[in-house]
Amino acid sequence: MVDTMERTKTLARDETDNLIASNKVEGTEVFNHKGEKLGKVENFMVGKRSGRVEYAVMSFGGILGIGEDHYPLPWDALDYDTEKDGYRVDIDKDKLKGAPSYRSDTGAAFNRQYGERVYSYYGIAY
Amino acid sequence: MVDTMERTKTLARDETDNLIASNKVEGTEVFNHKGEKLGKVENFMVGKRSGRVEYAVMSFGGILGIGEDHYPLPWDALDYDTEKDGYRVDIDKDKLKGAPSYRSDTGAAFNRQYGERVYSYYGIAY
Repeated sequence: MVDTMERTKTLARDETDNLIASNKVEGTEVFNHKGEKLGKVENFMVGKRSGRVEYAVMSFGGILGIGEDHYPLPWDALDYDTEKDGYRVDIDKDKLKGAPSYRSDTGAAFNRQYGERVYSYYGIAY
Repeated sequence: MVDTMERTKTLARDETDNLIASNKVEGTEVFNHKGEKLGKVENFMVGKRSGRVEYAVMSFGGILGIGEDHYPLPWDALDYDTEKDGYRVDIDKDKLKGAPSYRSDTGAAFNRQYGERVYSYYGIAY
């Protein structure tokens, strides 16, 4: 549908050395240090006034978005792994089960307290 | 396709008082202070390490993404207008024509110099 030249141009706009496009982050798969797939980045939440990414949302499971688990992840916990072509988060699958998620917690109330809980779970300073 | 309850839950996750989901920003229409439609937010660029939004990309014109003009906009230049259900950027259509865009400039090289040019065009400190 899209010719090669146009595609190349679009890809170049998706990413630079320092910057990444929001819609390129969305849908990217997430693996752990063992190479196990944990889920994919559904989207990420940005401070309306600050313009800072507060956290990314990793989802897995469910069908067509229903019954999915959603895990808020600190931006700094996501390292891009060029070999896997996805993000790497250093967490065991077992430990992930106990991580803050939108099944067990309310998704809307991402306040300072919840933020600290999320960040500390992944060993990142809030 | 999606029942009302699921939809409500999803919408609540899209936005809080302070935060907005990346994919909710994408596609939002942009108007100026005269209520004229300028374009829509295609996506926005985030610092890979900093986790800061460097700029949003507003597009207009073109068919299926081909031949579109792309304007980088400072995040702070975007004010949400609940009445219009879109972002408001205080710039005249005529002035927008001369704004930095990906037609006339290279999209990939958003360095400090280009950043300052973009921000100062909209009267925002870089």
